[in-house]
Amino acid sequence: MKVSRRDLLVGAAGVVALGKTAAAQSPPTPSDPSKVRGKPSRALGQRAASEKPQRQPRGAASSATPHQDLYGTITPADLHFERHHGGVPEIDPKSYSLLIHGMVDRPTVFTLADLKRFPSVSRVHFLECSGNFGGRGTVAELTPQQLAGLTSTSEWTGVALATLFREVGASPKATWFLAEGQDAAVLTRSVPVSKAYDDALIAYGQNGEAIRPEQGYPARLFLPGWEGNASVKWLRRIELSDRPFMTREETSKYTDPMADGTSRIFSFLMDARSLITYPAYPVTVSRGWIEINGIAWTGSGKITRVDISTDDGATWTPATLQEPVLSKAHTRFRHLWNWTGREAVIMSRAVEETGYMQPTRTDLLATRGVSTVGYHFNPVTGWLVRPDGTVVYRTEQWS
Amino acid sequence: MKVSRRDLLVGAAGVVALGKTAAAQSPPTPSDPSKVRGKPSRALGQRAASEKPQRQPRGAASSATPHQDLYGTITPADLHFERHHGGVPEIDPKSYSLLIHGMVDRPTVFTLADLKRFPSVSRVHFLECSGNFGGRGTVAELTPQQLAGLTSTSEWTGVALATLFREVGASPKATWFLAEGQDAAVLTRSVPVSKAYDDALIAYGQNGEAIRPEQGYPARLFLPGWEGNASVKWLRRIELSDRPFMTREETSKYTDPMADGTSRIFSFLMDARSLITYPAYPVTVSRGWIEINGIAWTGSGKITRVDISTDDGATWTPATLQEPVLSKAHTRFRHLWNWTGREAVIMSRAVEETGYMQPTRTDLLATRGVSTVGYHFNPVTGWLVRPDGTVVYRTEQWS
Repeated sequence: MKVSRRDLLVGAAGVVALGKTAAAQSPPTPSDPSKVRGKPSRALGQRAASEKPQRQPRGAASSATPHQDLYGTITPADLHFERHHGGVPEIDPKSYSLLIHGMVDRPTVFTLADLKRFPSVSRVHFLECSGNFGGRGTVAELTPQQLAGLTSTSEWTGVALATLFREVGASPKATWFLAEGQDAAVLTRSVPVSKAYDDALIAYGQNGEAIRPEQGYPARLFLPGWEGNASVKWLRRIELSDRPFMTREETSKYTDPMADGTSRIFSFLMDARSLITYPAYPVTVSRGWIEINGIAWTGSGKITRVDISTDDGATWTPATLQEPVLSKAHTRFRHLWNWTGREAVIMSRAVEETGYMQPTRTDLLATRGVSTVGYHFNPVTGWLVRPDGTVVYRTEQWS
Repeated sequence: MKVSRRDLLVGAAGVVALGKTAAAQSPPTPSDPSKVRGKPSRALGQRAASEKPQRQPRGAASSATPHQDLYGTITPADLHFERHHGGVPEIDPKSYSLLIHGMVDRPTVFTLADLKRFPSVSRVHFLECSGNFGGRGTVAELTPQQLAGLTSTSEWTGVALATLFREVGASPKATWFLAEGQDAAVLTRSVPVSKAYDDALIAYGQNGEAIRPEQGYPARLFLPGWEGNASVKWLRRIELSDRPFMTREETSKYTDPMADGTSRIFSFLMDARSLITYPAYPVTVSRGWIEINGIAWTGSGKITRVDISTDDGATWTPATLQEPVLSKAHTRFRHLWNWTGREAVIMSRAVEETGYMQPTRTDLLATRGVSTVGYHFNPVTGWLVRPDGTVVYRTEQWS
């Protein structure tokens, strides 16, 4: 555990070999790192200087996860997508409180310490904005981040909402609850009480540490598999009722126009989707074996299969899924492809445990109509690999 | 996706309400965050100002993970423990290469791009320094971080070493390989070839992103379940042979003195261990229900049970394990305890799928002798809960 004398000698020799001037300039990447003593331990690690993954802000109110830079399934907390309607509030955890009232026996105010004292659970889940993808896909120069960066996966920790509902004595007649945020938008949504007794959490932990400010610090509602907007962040109030509250966010927004002219409301579930993250714009590939890989997920449970096509959807082959496949979580898929150098369109489609298969654009147009800005758009999408090895989005017209 | 006019009005109203001077001072935690427009989206998230988890450097050559601050199982990358023998080198990923030679048909140099082109795998595994715990436990004011902070869990991504061994045509007669680092210590270890065909990786990804510098950027050997030192970081060379290389790190160090006067060598496997992370020094608890929780792990596979004692080891009750329990990974355990306010010693002991149970100090002394500075010490440890609610380490004498 200690720095040995030899370590010190090696370090000193390295500095001497470099010469005084070079050492003073501290070259960032020595030609032979084994001849230079490295950096000492630090309280917080940082990324390597040459690694610069970043979220991509879309205006002031959202930013997207750089899926083209990521491996595996976990999204680093500082790269988790963000979406807010009134900016990210700064909340003092000491004065934070959550009121649960309405159709309950014992209206109660919980401090953060109170919430942490209840039995806790941790689960790996994705969170996705229902506006992810939306009407994108009409230009070719589109990265996975730009195409569908409003989804991320974390290990969330918190208290089951069912535990708190039992604590306050929720009425068996309560069927909906209002969740209200403490941000400047005072975001409110109506949520069926049944979700609380299924798998809803009041989350205060994310990837092992305290939840980050953009994700709702110090505590948020978390509804696994449901559209991100309903998992109200910076949660300050829950009111139980026997009917939905019809808030602005579920009347003027977050409804889905359908092909028959009606609108769908309370469409919480995020349907199965997949996204090839490599190869994708802006990489250039060379001939030979290429590992096509990406992520698939569904709000309904587990992904059971991801099919890959390398001929624009004419034929499909199942990819390998990274184990363990977790429910309502990004699942990494991988598929080896021997590229001959001819122009090709590569695509992925997800299948979930209910049997539901990710739809094509044609399927979606039939049910959802020509709207290009709607929520819950999850079409099979493709990347065009050109003979020169450049990869771009295979554009599609939505109207 | 856009900032609405109403959002802007709410934001503007908030600033007006605060007054010009207050707004200019930008109070970090407004008394009512819902009246102040929050921060815009950012390329990289940061922790909340009041959350300050940190690694604890032990000299220049290591730092420990703050387990008392963490939830779940994933260790955030910037809090992953570090241990190095010549500092953290800075390596240019463009000039990085890995040579595999010795008893192979085709000695080969792989660039980082070469390594990434092979089929990849991702797995969640712990990594632990065999010196973790060591002779600690003789003082009461000891946090979980100080007691056993040299273990962390990440989702690692890389190429199976078996894939590379097949690529270079490893001789069936090769039984050991040398792994050599590119750091100033030029750390070298001998590893059985059988581990390569079991589950060894050349890892370049950690928790979704590029591996961090302290964990071996841009690529490292990763031997799941084995002592951290053997998973050579900043890996530059692998040489296959028909015998171990007897390097300094496996003769002068990383051997285990035994009670009978002999020394054990090549003791790679990390045995089952558990650590209560709450309640633990320095928290103070109050009477009533307390969720005892912590982490358990073993290099042999899966944890099958964690027993909790709240009476200094007299009686034991199984805790709840967080699902899914993954092989060779931290497993969160939880147990509800109704504390009456009397002095108590709480302990945990892990049981793994082979049937092996974490030993007591007495067990260890019988086989390992009185050494207090050795490697691979995994005794059952306890926390003393005093009547005033303060919690300290239940000290033990090791000689």
